[in-house]
Amino acid sequence: MDTSTAAKTPQQFHVDEVSPAYWRVTFDNGPVNLVDPDTIDQLSALIATIENATDLTVVVFRSAKPGYFMAHWDFLSDGARVARMQPGPTGLHPYLDNLVRLSKVPAATISEIRGRARGAGSEFVLATDIRFASPKAVLGQFEVGVGAVPGGGAMARLGRLVGRGRALEILLGGDDFPASIAADYGYVNRVIADDQIEEFTDAFARRVAAFDKTAVTGIKKQVDVATLPDDQEFAPGLKAYFATAGRRENAPFVQLLLSQGLQQPDGIETDLGTTIGTLRQDH
Amino acid sequence: MDTSTAAKTPQQFHVDEVSPAYWRVTFDNGPVNLVDPDTIDQLSALIATIENATDLTVVVFRSAKPGYFMAHWDFLSDGARVARMQPGPTGLHPYLDNLVRLSKVPAATISEIRGRARGAGSEFVLATDIRFASPKAVLGQFEVGVGAVPGGGAMARLGRLVGRGRALEILLGGDDFPASIAADYGYVNRVIADDQIEEFTDAFARRVAAFDKTAVTGIKKQVDVATLPDDQEFAPGLKAYFATAGRRENAPFVQLLLSQGLQQPDGIETDLGTTIGTLRQDH
Amino acid sequence: MDTSTAAKTPQQFHVDEVSPAYWRVTFDNGPVNLVDPDTIDQLSALIATIENATDLTVVVFRSAKPGYFMAHWDFLSDGARVARMQPGPTGLHPYLDNLVRLSKVPAATISEIRGRARGAGSEFVLATDIRFASPKAVLGQFEVGVGAVPGGGAMARLGRLVGRGRALEILLGGDDFPASIAADYGYVNRVIADDQIEEFTDAFARRVAAFDKTAVTGIKKQVDVATLPDDQEFAPGLKAYFATAGRRENAPFVQLLLSQGLQQPDGIETDLGTTIGTLRQDH
Repeated sequence: MDTSTAAKTPQQFHVDEVSPAYWRVTFDNGPVNLVDPDTIDQLSALIATIENATDLTVVVFRSAKPGYFMAHWDFLSDGARVARMQPGPTGLHPYLDNLVRLSKVPAATISEIRGRARGAGSEFVLATDIRFASPKAVLGQFEVGVGAVPGGGAMARLGRLVGRGRALEILLGGDDFPASIAADYGYVNRVIADDQIEEFTDAFARRVAAFDKTAVTGIKKQVDVATLPDDQEFAPGLKAYFATAGRRENAPFVQLLLSQGLQQPDGIETDLGTTIGTLRQDH
Repeated sequence: MDTSTAAKTPQQFHVDEVSPAYWRVTFDNGPVNLVDPDTIDQLSALIATIENATDLTVVVFRSAKPGYFMAHWDFLSDGARVARMQPGPTGLHPYLDNLVRLSKVPAATISEIRGRARGAGSEFVLATDIRFASPKAVLGQFEVGVGAVPGGGAMARLGRLVGRGRALEILLGGDDFPASIAADYGYVNRVIADDQIEEFTDAFARRVAAFDKTAVTGIKKQVDVATLPDDQEFAPGLKAYFATAGRRENAPFVQLLLSQGLQQPDGIETDLGTTIGTLRQDH
Repeated sequence: MDTSTAAKTPQQFHVDEVSPAYWRVTFDNGPVNLVDPDTIDQLSALIATIENATDLTVVVFRSAKPGYFMAHWDFLSDGARVARMQPGPTGLHPYLDNLVRLSKVPAATISEIRGRARGAGSEFVLATDIRFASPKAVLGQFEVGVGAVPGGGAMARLGRLVGRGRALEILLGGDDFPASIAADYGYVNRVIADDQIEEFTDAFARRVAAFDKTAVTGIKKQVDVATLPDDQEFAPGLKAYFATAGRRENAPFVQLLLSQGLQQPDGIETDLGTTIGTLRQDH
């Protein structure tokens, strides 16, 4: 992490150390919680901290913004800065390196999803171990609708998590998936009523925090063997993202989306996945 | 494809080119939509056409016959003709070559299932990307009940799609699975009311057709890596089919089935999977 | 099997040969059906018998004890005896060797689960082909709560059966899963009313028993290729179990559990998974 840059930018991840074994991390970046180059840098630093926290057994990720867990990648962010980023410890670009390392941290990770988690936001929750969702959660991978291949592991992870048929429906249809269908498909673990999910997640986390970290990490390591793709399987997805996302022919449609309220809390962002399909057909 | 033969036989696959990006294919072969040697030849030609259709992004498969999507392999078809067929591009027998290639066509493929899809019919829908089913859909692999191992990839695909336990229930029990259980198990993506499924599938297909084919094929390629078995994993299944299906000891039971209305729309074909189990126990 | 020992110990597995093709095995070992070193020896012998029963096509496993299918490993059993056990045919320790071989027997295996199946009990049902559960079934892997990594394949099997997210929830949370959630997650095939499950399982078994064994074993072999991990993937799990389960620091908590009714039918055993979490947090 370039600390001189980090010093100038607000922290997006707020860590509440409930106990040495249990941390709660709240994500906060603008009105809809976009993922941007600062997110990459700060998440990289946060993951390193988690990797090295000797007593840390469980981490809960949540959002500070009603309606949005983590909207998606910031379409207005500095692409040149992203292109210049150096590979992380896995040898992968840090956007992807973060997600690959996040899956393997020696602590249980839980996403408490009470709002929209699309594109990079969906890829983030897919890289955590467990996804609890309230009925206000909406998940999706709308990248196909803006002419791009998702770059952060969505194909590798959804293919294994929900099966080929549903993964292709999610990824090729690019639509929004409400919590109930997400749970039917296995995209999230289960749905908990919105006024109970904080308590439910907290109780689950306190259980795990009370367990022996040796057992937690020992179990997770074997589940990794059974369920995680080889790190290198992720690389072609990100390569395809870079090859497709920045194409000149995508620009007019992205401009149309921005003109209709993309990245604002009350415009088309509310039902982005569905709307992109409609707009594409009118386009 | 032997075009001299094709010239003599009616076309079973009727292609409606809704647009260059969206084709609707209707299968029509006798009263219950059997799969026979002509189906193999014609499907091979259709897949080649799909592979080479530059602008084609999505294909919907549907049935012309109420109650039957694609019943199963024709027990009265010419086995010698099937045995003589030359390997397709994958090096596999064309029955299997078709299904392996169908999974990999550079377009999204959707089965709209409003009737029975058993045996080869089930294997066909499993080789398409996405399965939408109406409550009138019935799926199953009854081959075990006639003494055969399914040959078109059912073990490889169901094992990955619905998990070992449910795959073994489907394949070793050989029973009929109504749409609701098929959806619970992940055998189909979801159930849509019968009077809405055409509109639902069409809307989904039009969404995908409006997207950039480069993104669609780029995504599908990575999902293939995550979810498809190696082509060679399919070969032993077909070998086991040929070794078991034609055995002399199976013949009397198949004759019994034929005498009770097999391959006719209103006889035992209506609840074939269930009935085979009953008849076997009485036999 | 040490037959001199076996002669002194009661048989835990009672085999009812309904027909040469269909066996019903009832497990009976103390008030809660614990798994102990005798279970290992006797299961090894039973599996060898099943492997060699020429006409056997289907085996149903059930419990003689209301409320308990197979509680878990006996915490009071002779660890030195277990440590001395010689590898089975797969080269793995016989506890694990049994389960790996059980998955591959040339007959369909069905667990009829009407009570608790936790830890080793859960690992047993996961090693059978098909799991039918009544609403009285409770499944779970509570090992994390007693400081241990499960040793009998739970990570390898659950990871593939229910997907990474739900496998990690089950294994890291260590809680009890009632039948309904177990079915939602794919941990069991389906839920059947308790007063109907015997009839349902029996009807399913009679169907399969009426089929040709050649087809059953041919199908199962290909599903194995698609769904079973390599035998060697299981070994690190058991190694981690032995490295973690017997640690001195686990002993006081296990003593606490024993003092509160562990391994007794009406104490904490009734909701063991949940209770362990509560006790750990108070501990």
